[in-house]
Amino acid sequence: MSLDLDSIRAAHKRIRAQIHRTPVLTSSRLDEANGASLFFKCENFQKISAFKARGATNAVFVLDDATARRGVATHSSGNHGAALARAAKLRGIPAHIVMPSNSAKVKVRAVESYGAHIVFCEPTEAAREAACTDVIATTGARLIHSFENEDVMAGQGTAAVELLEDVSDLDLVVCPVGGGGLLCGTAVAAKSMRPQIKVIAVEPANVDDAARSFRAARRIVTKKKFTIADGLRTNVGAPNFPIIQRYVDDIVTVSEEAITSAMRTIWGTMKIIIEPSAAVPYAAIMERQPSQGYGSAGKIDIAGKRVGIILTGGNVDLDALPWMRLEVRGQKPEGRS
Amino acid sequence: MSLDLDSIRAAHKRIRAQIHRTPVLTSSRLDEANGASLFFKCENFQKISAFKARGATNAVFVLDDATARRGVATHSSGNHGAALARAAKLRGIPAHIVMPSNSAKVKVRAVESYGAHIVFCEPTEAAREAACTDVIATTGARLIHSFENEDVMAGQGTAAVELLEDVSDLDLVVCPVGGGGLLCGTAVAAKSMRPQIKVIAVEPANVDDAARSFRAARRIVTKKKFTIADGLRTNVGAPNFPIIQRYVDDIVTVSEEAITSAMRTIWGTMKIIIEPSAAVPYAAIMERQPSQGYGSAGKIDIAGKRVGIILTGGNVDLDALPWMRLEVRGQKPEGRS
Repeated sequence: MSLDLDSIRAAHKRIRAQIHRTPVLTSSRLDEANGASLFFKCENFQKISAFKARGATNAVFVLDDATARRGVATHSSGNHGAALARAAKLRGIPAHIVMPSNSAKVKVRAVESYGAHIVFCEPTEAAREAACTDVIATTGARLIHSFENEDVMAGQGTAAVELLEDVSDLDLVVCPVGGGGLLCGTAVAAKSMRPQIKVIAVEPANVDDAARSFRAARRIVTKKKFTIADGLRTNVGAPNFPIIQRYVDDIVTVSEEAITSAMRTIWGTMKIIIEPSAAVPYAAIMERQPSQGYGSAGKIDIAGKRVGIILTGGNVDLDALPWMRLEVRGQKPEGRS
Repeated sequence: MSLDLDSIRAAHKRIRAQIHRTPVLTSSRLDEANGASLFFKCENFQKISAFKARGATNAVFVLDDATARRGVATHSSGNHGAALARAAKLRGIPAHIVMPSNSAKVKVRAVESYGAHIVFCEPTEAAREAACTDVIATTGARLIHSFENEDVMAGQGTAAVELLEDVSDLDLVVCPVGGGGLLCGTAVAAKSMRPQIKVIAVEPANVDDAARSFRAARRIVTKKKFTIADGLRTNVGAPNFPIIQRYVDDIVTVSEEAITSAMRTIWGTMKIIIEPSAAVPYAAIMERQPSQGYGSAGKIDIAGKRVGIILTGGNVDLDALPWMRLEVRGQKPEGRS
């Protein structure tokens, strides 16, 4: 199988009963502030409160019975682990989730709540991969990588299918990029359904491997650095990069301050809870980050346009909101509510 | 005019173009936790982020031209002030909003953003009323009280009309009570559209004048006390009480801890932002507060029922969330997300 609109539509049909068709919200206040029409695809209202439910469900339900019976495995400290655990439970097969021993309790509980087998490991990349290899060798489970798997990418692309079905004449889709699973699915779906659409990816400047790779026309792997957008700390996957090169129009980067400010603006104005990673596209709109390739004004040019924005998830620690940190540093941002 | 379904339907027709028909959200997780079907009417997504937009708009647009031209006035440090300012702007008439000098800046800015004339006064009841009387004497403006006005009540009742239109066979509607504007509109609309429905009001135990009045069958006025549910600190209005006696089945009270916990549960589970006052109905469901009149188990009996819940608003200070205070006191609640 290769990733194309057919595989994404097949994924949509496959997972439809197991996921929400999430609403597309608008805000007259944000439209006025930006001189554009913004359409927010609310994957924070998705099952497990993140788009990851789509890809994991597709990857689990596409397996033949014999393979499925041996179970699935992944390493994830984030939403993919919960998504895979849930999908496996829905299919009635085992799931083995490798999690770092320092994972947040709330994330461990989420995975546990779906009855998955959790394998704890040291919080290093090597330990995660070793533990995952080990559990696969022991159980015969199928590895479902969180973004390098084409069935996962196809599943993630179903959010864009719904967005383009629900909103006509979009000029632009803006999507965050971490490993690239959502971005690949989104770009292939959007460009296939509407060839004239622009697809712009946004990345935290602190982890700008995708933007740098895109400029250099070769995949550059960088060391992990901190970003408040914890879903986007990873490098773009090897199978993801050529798809991004082919289908994505530009990748822009945003500051940590812009991410926090965008998150707070969306909370305060739209009254919905999104996680920091989900605020990254709107950060690019607020910050009017100079782009190096797209848009006559050197920014994401949204003036007068119809812009689709994927709000990727809503899993955030309500005890540690990013503006509390900024406050400590004396940089309390103004809400717009 | 008296408050009845006709006046509420007339209000709905009058304001329809100026307000949102807000969505009704559900949560399979909360349904499972409670063994009931819960339908949340999301007035946090309303214009000015609160149901108050409905009543103020109706009260402004029902005025004849000669009266309207002289403007409208109210005293409010909360959502009604912003709602009246917005409604007046939409009609192109002056609005005079009396606000205590210690009002939150964000609330002052909201009123200012609609071009209203703000009259600051000392933060006492007497000073507010004197300032309001004064501005009315000077300008000839019409007083639009935030809950004692029947046009305001009729406007607030339009949320229940939409809820009952969108959700069939509701057994129960749960609604917070402060002054009683929303409760009167809700109860009259719900009972008129569906006579077998139960209407249960919920009030913070710290300001339990409505519950006490309901038991005593006479209006008891109590001193203002603190509650985190800042929209519900007021006593029930004199014209509101007989309507409540006639149409409401019971009034139950909830603790401050239950309000905070309910607010956090709805944030964490539904990924929407509601203000503390809006969490009060769900607090009664979570706390399973013994009721003194309704329900065989001495609680709000929702088991197996279809329950409509009005989420009244989403205006909350993102820098001062109630669980931060609890944390300081060493009572950090568990999230359910």
